[in-house]
Amino acid sequence: MPYTDTDRLGINTIRTLAVDATFAANSGHPGAPMGLAPAAHVLFNKFMTFNPKNPDWVNRDRFVLSNGHGCMLQYALLHLFGYAVTIDDLKHFRQVDSITPGHPEAHDTPGIEVTTGPLGQGFSNAVGLAVAQAHTAATFNKSGFELINNYTYTIFGDGCAMEGIASEAASTAGHLQLGNLIAIYDDNHISIDGDTKCAFTEDVLKRFEAYGWHTQWVKDGDHDLEGIEAAIAAAKKVTDKPSVIKLTTTIGFGSNLQGTGGVHGNPLKADDIKQVKAKFGFDPEKTFVVPQEVYDQYHAHAAEGAAAEQEWNKLFEKYGQEHKELHADLLRRLKKDLPEGWQNHLPVYKPTDAAIASRKLSESVLEAIYEVIPELMSGSADLTGSNNTRWKKAIDFQPPSLGIGNWAGRYMRYGVREHAMAAIMNGMSAYGTIIPAGGTFLNFVSYAAGAVRLSSLSHQRVIYVATHDSIGLGEDGPTHQPIETLAHFRALPNMMVWRPADGNETSAAYYMALTSKGTPSILALTRQNLPQLEGSSLAKAIKGGYVVLEDKEADVTLVSTGSEVSLCLEAVKTLKDQGLKARVVSLPCVEVFDAQDKEYKLSVIPDGVPTLSVEVMSTLGWEKYSHEQFGLNRFGASGPYKEVYAKFEFTPEGIAKRAKLTVDYYKDVKPLRSPVNRAFQQLI
Amino acid sequence: MPYTDTDRLGINTIRTLAVDATFAANSGHPGAPMGLAPAAHVLFNKFMTFNPKNPDWVNRDRFVLSNGHGCMLQYALLHLFGYAVTIDDLKHFRQVDSITPGHPEAHDTPGIEVTTGPLGQGFSNAVGLAVAQAHTAATFNKSGFELINNYTYTIFGDGCAMEGIASEAASTAGHLQLGNLIAIYDDNHISIDGDTKCAFTEDVLKRFEAYGWHTQWVKDGDHDLEGIEAAIAAAKKVTDKPSVIKLTTTIGFGSNLQGTGGVHGNPLKADDIKQVKAKFGFDPEKTFVVPQEVYDQYHAHAAEGAAAEQEWNKLFEKYGQEHKELHADLLRRLKKDLPEGWQNHLPVYKPTDAAIASRKLSESVLEAIYEVIPELMSGSADLTGSNNTRWKKAIDFQPPSLGIGNWAGRYMRYGVREHAMAAIMNGMSAYGTIIPAGGTFLNFVSYAAGAVRLSSLSHQRVIYVATHDSIGLGEDGPTHQPIETLAHFRALPNMMVWRPADGNETSAAYYMALTSKGTPSILALTRQNLPQLEGSSLAKAIKGGYVVLEDKEADVTLVSTGSEVSLCLEAVKTLKDQGLKARVVSLPCVEVFDAQDKEYKLSVIPDGVPTLSVEVMSTLGWEKYSHEQFGLNRFGASGPYKEVYAKFEFTPEGIAKRAKLTVDYYKDVKPLRSPVNRAFQQLI
Repeated sequence: MPYTDTDRLGINTIRTLAVDATFAANSGHPGAPMGLAPAAHVLFNKFMTFNPKNPDWVNRDRFVLSNGHGCMLQYALLHLFGYAVTIDDLKHFRQVDSITPGHPEAHDTPGIEVTTGPLGQGFSNAVGLAVAQAHTAATFNKSGFELINNYTYTIFGDGCAMEGIASEAASTAGHLQLGNLIAIYDDNHISIDGDTKCAFTEDVLKRFEAYGWHTQWVKDGDHDLEGIEAAIAAAKKVTDKPSVIKLTTTIGFGSNLQGTGGVHGNPLKADDIKQVKAKFGFDPEKTFVVPQEVYDQYHAHAAEGAAAEQEWNKLFEKYGQEHKELHADLLRRLKKDLPEGWQNHLPVYKPTDAAIASRKLSESVLEAIYEVIPELMSGSADLTGSNNTRWKKAIDFQPPSLGIGNWAGRYMRYGVREHAMAAIMNGMSAYGTIIPAGGTFLNFVSYAAGAVRLSSLSHQRVIYVATHDSIGLGEDGPTHQPIETLAHFRALPNMMVWRPADGNETSAAYYMALTSKGTPSILALTRQNLPQLEGSSLAKAIKGGYVVLEDKEADVTLVSTGSEVSLCLEAVKTLKDQGLKARVVSLPCVEVFDAQDKEYKLSVIPDGVPTLSVEVMSTLGWEKYSHEQFGLNRFGASGPYKEVYAKFEFTPEGIAKRAKLTVDYYKDVKPLRSPVNRAFQQLI
Repeated sequence: MPYTDTDRLGINTIRTLAVDATFAANSGHPGAPMGLAPAAHVLFNKFMTFNPKNPDWVNRDRFVLSNGHGCMLQYALLHLFGYAVTIDDLKHFRQVDSITPGHPEAHDTPGIEVTTGPLGQGFSNAVGLAVAQAHTAATFNKSGFELINNYTYTIFGDGCAMEGIASEAASTAGHLQLGNLIAIYDDNHISIDGDTKCAFTEDVLKRFEAYGWHTQWVKDGDHDLEGIEAAIAAAKKVTDKPSVIKLTTTIGFGSNLQGTGGVHGNPLKADDIKQVKAKFGFDPEKTFVVPQEVYDQYHAHAAEGAAAEQEWNKLFEKYGQEHKELHADLLRRLKKDLPEGWQNHLPVYKPTDAAIASRKLSESVLEAIYEVIPELMSGSADLTGSNNTRWKKAIDFQPPSLGIGNWAGRYMRYGVREHAMAAIMNGMSAYGTIIPAGGTFLNFVSYAAGAVRLSSLSHQRVIYVATHDSIGLGEDGPTHQPIETLAHFRALPNMMVWRPADGNETSAAYYMALTSKGTPSILALTRQNLPQLEGSSLAKAIKGGYVVLEDKEADVTLVSTGSEVSLCLEAVKTLKDQGLKARVVSLPCVEVFDAQDKEYKLSVIPDGVPTLSVEVMSTLGWEKYSHEQFGLNRFGASGPYKEVYAKFEFTPEGIAKRAKLTVDYYKDVKPLRSPVNRAFQQLI
């Protein structure tokens, strides 16, 4: 059907809504919505299937605005189609407690799939959504039941194109031959510093070709609706490659400042707004106007989406008759519930069991649960053999044509791309049918910090398998030995940082990571072997902290995590020889411990006993749980790990020495003392 | 000259040294050195000019092994050429306190230019070294005095090629037309997960072409020494583009496991070592053997380098006669000294001066000092207008052909590439003639975490201008509001994190950042205006912490940073109305405060007074300086900043309320109390 004046009116309605909302907020980005309105209008109305009344329908087409600062584009679309985003919500754009924040947040606004704005993230999330679609389709589709066949669409700008994370994700998508992914590159030549020619003169399409993408160029994205439609249609026909459409647009189209940096990140001036509205046939004196025929057109498309969902529901019901177990499994996954009794498969250890590295203990957990939790997809950023993230019978998630896996495979080869791995996992989790776990060294989770933060902010159940968690990795040396990393992620809201001390604690970490539906986890795991503790159990460890060794007459409490807990237990014997009694607390996850009631916490770290924390990295934050801290506030060293530990006095003797200093220092404390006073100097 | 048996012996000596060292260490990566020995031999002997007796000669050619795990290649070369790396040092590869750690560390080993190993970093450092060379040449070279004309060479592998940071840096280098940069891509098809075909199937050369690089392919990197030489020679002739040479090699060449993942990250087995040595004509029973003719050849080339430096020294002396000031300036820069009296240019503020955002105060500092500190190069990751990093008369560092700057320009347009910006700055700093400062939002310094860490580890004087430092950025919302970021970087060793409260503190931050020769700095700066404090001065602030408002009868000390210091001063008035006396401490840099003597620190945070910290982000770590903490252990909100502050009770009233709770709580404290006990709950 040819495009009509109603289509153009819809496009201009999006533009004027963006103009009005940013003006009302006195901040925001009108330029991208004004430039992208034509493409968004065509994409949403001609290609995308979705039901605004049920934004969670699993087979909806996904849309990700990677240049999230242009979110008024998306909010306007959500409103026009009838999502639960009212015109008042648009009027409260960028206001406290509104559902229309300055950048799109998945957790807050119906119809927003993922949280974007930090550049490059959305594009990479889209790759994850496409991975999830391909996997879910391969897992659940059966002859006569093409249950899962949605596409993922994303729009990204020059900023996203410059970010390394997007390069990593694009290379991954090309390798994976994700034909279900269609990206529109908003080629508007403007970023915050002005013309992109000052920093960004590469040939973007050629680069995507090099990654293995199908590429097209629509040269007049401002007017050529037929060209946009034809390009998306052509992209949909390419099933063995992701597609990118370079769309040349004029940022701030319609403004007196169109095509300049002036419309990127600032509202239009009042007189400019008037001329924009006049130009587009709107009353210059009115704001937030939506012509009825625009509502009608958008609602009609929404109704088609609702009908499509109804059809799908019928298909799914029939599917339930023929594929009862799969039907139940998909329903269960969508509720984020785990299969009943899954936890009975978690490994349990006795003190007499062998000492094992917690990265190996983690592998044993995966081996034990992968069959009962089919939504678990593991993977690694090219450290499979080191992260121990792969169960023996795992099949790789790969395009079948490569001959090394298939779409139903549950093991991801992310390549050496930590940041994209994290963002792809966020997208996989956001799809709703998968729990992703991905491995790298703990030190290199920092490479992914931008995306890890968004796991937390957007409440994704993502598991970071972070091995080689300290100077205990030994010979690789300071470049690979985390010092600041646990403090970093413990300071991140809605993140569980686990550092298990043995097998039962590792099982506990997985138990909490898998059952916390809206919280990601980092599991910090050792390279070196750890003994199985006498006092550990899953039930205790899932409280985040517990007493490993009690002594009601203790002179000192040693609070520790991971590989240092067993060292503390050794130190107790050394202290005993010196006539001192010590109790030992394991605190594998401070965030979970914080959530326990005060009485419990006081039973673990009681009044009246001086407390020393022992963790072989930055002491930052340990003052919260201890009077004195033994840690490592400097970079590590390259060498066999026992020698490195000894160099920094992380030995029973080194711990005992500091414990004694702590006991002595607090012996006669009655007055309030400045926190500046310390019992001993940190090694520097 | 044709290659001889001596050349092949030298190549095989590198290989056997790598085999012996990794075997002795029982860890490490023999594969890359064995595969890359031919290329390294040709590159170092035929092209590179350097003097092992003076690794700091400014015009030396730079070499960066980006795949730093292959560092035995580099240690072997350093030894053979006669750097201060002995055969014993090679025997102590990967041992505690050796100068041959598991990955190359610039600070520890003579001849190592930058610290590599974390993948992608070295490649990006090389771009920075090339930027620095181009800029230094444009600044100092004069007719008849081509003082600075060195090349930067880097070798990188598949791992580096996959990392986003390297993509960002490669795009930047292409844009900048860095003809002085030559990269060799070790195309060996192997990464830790095995064959790269499982994750990395893109066309790397085509991608580099898209970035604007000159590309070549040497198909037999194992044997074709002439081909390697011809390719490097051709690359040197291309002066308006960086060059990449794809070099197809066999990882672990010579081993029974050559070409497989088995030789990547594990020493060879004893019998394999024997057959390797026999194959290469070495005695299978001997270890760490260097034939004399190999020493002779390498030392001869080293002598040529020493002679070249002598010639250069003569030229430089003559230069000093004709260009006295430039000569003195270059000498001064190389000592890392600043021009005498520079600090007198730092802005000083009175309490009556206007309230100004610290990002603007930072701009005023740059405006005031750029002329007196010519080695300062500023820049931004596409946030120039927001970071306020550009002085008005700045000229961009750009290839002249673009018509928007020149090589002598001192303002970098990094594009939206935070991670590469940081690594490029590390390279620029490592060159020795530049102090780089680069801007982004504080929240997005996290994108650069991998490289920021290496600024610290490798002692680079790099300045991160991190604006929009809190929820105070307002409308952009939680995706852009740092919560965990300061805790993260405060936990990083050898990093100064500054959060100035006003103009004098901003000047102090720059004073310390510029005069700390071996420590990088993050300057956390506000978007919103801050009043000039009554009690601030540069002299006080450079102690890292000081008393802004004293009261010898204080009931409570408020310890704060940045934008919250003036809020605390307001809270003092509120407390006064409630009959409570308060003193206020500003702690703009905890690392510098930590370095003061104990007496001073106790004068700032004294015994006997309960202390409340006030900072509008994660409280993690504040227990070190306060009894109670008021912070934000959740994500922020999108809205006008004053409303966001009010939402989280960061108001004089909100602070006073918590101060009073703190006073009450500690009133009768005599016994030692568990740190679990808190005066009030954090907002969640």
